[in-house]
Amino acid sequence: MENLLNEVKFDDKGIVVAVAQDYITNEVLMVAYMNKESLEITLNEKRACYYSRSRQSLWRKGETSGHWQNLKGLYYDCDADAILMKVEQIGNACHTGAYSCFFNKVFEDNVTDQAILNRLYNQIIDRRDN
Amino acid sequence: MENLLNEVKFDDKGIVVAVAQDYITNEVLMVAYMNKESLEITLNEKRACYYSRSRQSLWRKGETSGHWQNLKGLYYDCDADAILMKVEQIGNACHTGAYSCFFNKVFEDNVTDQAILNRLYNQIIDRRDN
Repeated sequence: MENLLNEVKFDDKGIVVAVAQDYITNEVLMVAYMNKESLEITLNEKRACYYSRSRQSLWRKGETSGHWQNLKGLYYDCDADAILMKVEQIGNACHTGAYSCFFNKVFEDNVTDQAILNRLYNQIIDRRDN
Repeated sequence: MENLLNEVKFDDKGIVVAVAQDYITNEVLMVAYMNKESLEITLNEKRACYYSRSRQSLWRKGETSGHWQNLKGLYYDCDADAILMKVEQIGNACHTGAYSCFFNKVFEDNVTDQAILNRLYNQIIDRRDN
């Protein structure tokens, strides 16, 4: 763990951006921030703990709402300045009551179910064969 | 578009964080940043354009590598300070040659294929019935 904490590049305010996604569907649930301590807590307690920039304090997600994010995976990116978590979301991620915070749609292309099924089919065949 | 550009909350440096995910598998590919101009270009050209904080310039992803991200969806979150894109990734997202930038694994719980299949099955039944 000490290695990881030294590896991750916290910015000049001591924080790093963190993305949470549903561990089964991969839906992106929210984007928030972590400092070193919250990252440590997340890994120790196996539940997402963020750092609230507005309140300038640790934010154990779910502590007041019960909407915990149980940790299923944690990754960082190639230049170590972004964290990705796969979580089991209890209840909803968003304080508005939405499952994901990203409910504001600006643009969406027409992706047909057929295209998705074709892609899934090819992936399954690929996994079977490789 | 003018509405959106006024809606999104760019920070004191004029940038906002942006997450790109594969439009079919929902795999998170990368996290980068946009300024107002790059968001406008992304929506106009239907390809991800970021703002490089290190180079302090527009970054049309794929311009030199050919690894374009064709825009399939664009969303912003409940407090309008994060952008989410669904993209068709041409080639790889990461400059290391990896498909996703998040290849550094810190922790991963053992999620069985059976659990995933159960969840998928329930979703399909749910979509059929609702």
